[in-house]
Amino acid sequence: MNKLTIVKIGGKIVEDDKRLNTFLKDFSTLEGYKILIHGGGRSATRIASALGIESKLINGRRITDGEMIKIVTMVYAGLVNKNIVAKLQSMSQNALGLTGADMNYMLSEKRPLINGIDYGYVGDVKKVDANIISKLLTDNVVPVLSPITHDKKGNLLNTNADTIAGETAKALSSLFEVTLIYCFEKKGVLMDETNDDSVINNINKESYKDLVSKGIIKDGMIPKLDNAFESIDNGVKKVIITEADSLINNSCGTVIE
Amino acid sequence: MNKLTIVKIGGKIVEDDKRLNTFLKDFSTLEGYKILIHGGGRSATRIASALGIESKLINGRRITDGEMIKIVTMVYAGLVNKNIVAKLQSMSQNALGLTGADMNYMLSEKRPLINGIDYGYVGDVKKVDANIISKLLTDNVVPVLSPITHDKKGNLLNTNADTIAGETAKALSSLFEVTLIYCFEKKGVLMDETNDDSVINNINKESYKDLVSKGIIKDGMIPKLDNAFESIDNGVKKVIITEADSLINNSCGTVIE
Repeated sequence: MNKLTIVKIGGKIVEDDKRLNTFLKDFSTLEGYKILIHGGGRSATRIASALGIESKLINGRRITDGEMIKIVTMVYAGLVNKNIVAKLQSMSQNALGLTGADMNYMLSEKRPLINGIDYGYVGDVKKVDANIISKLLTDNVVPVLSPITHDKKGNLLNTNADTIAGETAKALSSLFEVTLIYCFEKKGVLMDETNDDSVINNINKESYKDLVSKGIIKDGMIPKLDNAFESIDNGVKKVIITEADSLINNSCGTVIE
Repeated sequence: MNKLTIVKIGGKIVEDDKRLNTFLKDFSTLEGYKILIHGGGRSATRIASALGIESKLINGRRITDGEMIKIVTMVYAGLVNKNIVAKLQSMSQNALGLTGADMNYMLSEKRPLINGIDYGYVGDVKKVDANIISKLLTDNVVPVLSPITHDKKGNLLNTNADTIAGETAKALSSLFEVTLIYCFEKKGVLMDETNDDSVINNINKESYKDLVSKGIIKDGMIPKLDNAFESIDNGVKKVIITEADSLINNSCGTVIE
């Protein structure tokens, strides 16, 4: 099977033009098939605020009412996505920016009330069309996926970028040998959160249980790791958690397999 | 040759959700290959204003500085484009929204100073990759083109939607029998501008000269018609000028051939 690298970057890199350029240069040198997924929540919050609209988040998830879906569509699918696409094109990467609505590659369902909370126009992914993405890849296109999907009823839906990355990786794992890289603020999963260099190089299911029981892995890292193992259980070959700035030097990150 | 219909709609329809829905339903019933091009200047002006940024236009062309290119990218490539794509998907049209940067289908050059005026990040189209669009069409994709292009140096460029429509039509005329429809505010070119029903059904080069010399066609209609004849001279089969609401009933419009 051909190798496919799927990289997810978050808002901090997307917002910082210098870091973004460096990251994209590194990304463009990655060999083989590749897909980029980006967030953009910080930019959305900033632009919403400039328009006098308050951002409400519950457990890190944005409440997306009728006005907010317009803002995240503008920011994620427009500003952030096309900026990345244009930069990649300047690096001779044949980038194509997509929302789930484009060619209906990713279908979602509007999230129902959860414990009485109405998240609004937020999408839970139902179906990924792996064939469409695979066809683009074999045509040497580099898909750049923004965290917006749709319900095929005409509604755009705000969708977590980590989820888009995970669902895309799982769907494509029957066609490619997939490595999924989540870029975040640290060099990897740390043994000691006060020491940035204490990266745990490898985690498997057994060592994960052990690290959780000892309280070394906790809080926000648990959903990230659960997510990673769920991808592994669904055919993804390898998940790497690392910082964007050391994308190329994989040895810095934490490999989950 | 297969038939291809290219339709351009402007800001007034894009802004009016009810009219947009009606138009898109009509558009979705059009048989054969098709492409939609949209504007969105009114929305851009409104959102720029809400963000405290003044829109400056010279001869109807927007001065696009570093802040304004971000706004038009958000509005055209994000808000307007993806809204149309999601609506078309709900009508079982396999829409794909594109800027010129996506798959590098349309390359532009940043406009040089003209009579000392710096238009900023405005693009003059240099090259259209007809093969990419043709491939999408034969895969039953409906391209939805937003008026943003790029220079392959990493810059997004604001580009007139009429120009995008004309350049796309010309580039594809060697592969398809192209009908180019410009939707505007009137039923067609009028004999008497005070009478909306005085549509001139057909204009050719000879009758055009005659109508201009008699002062019947004047002002803003002249660049539109010059543009139409330029498309005809470059292989486009037929240009129709009509209102969006009567797209299907072509007999209402003015046919230029």
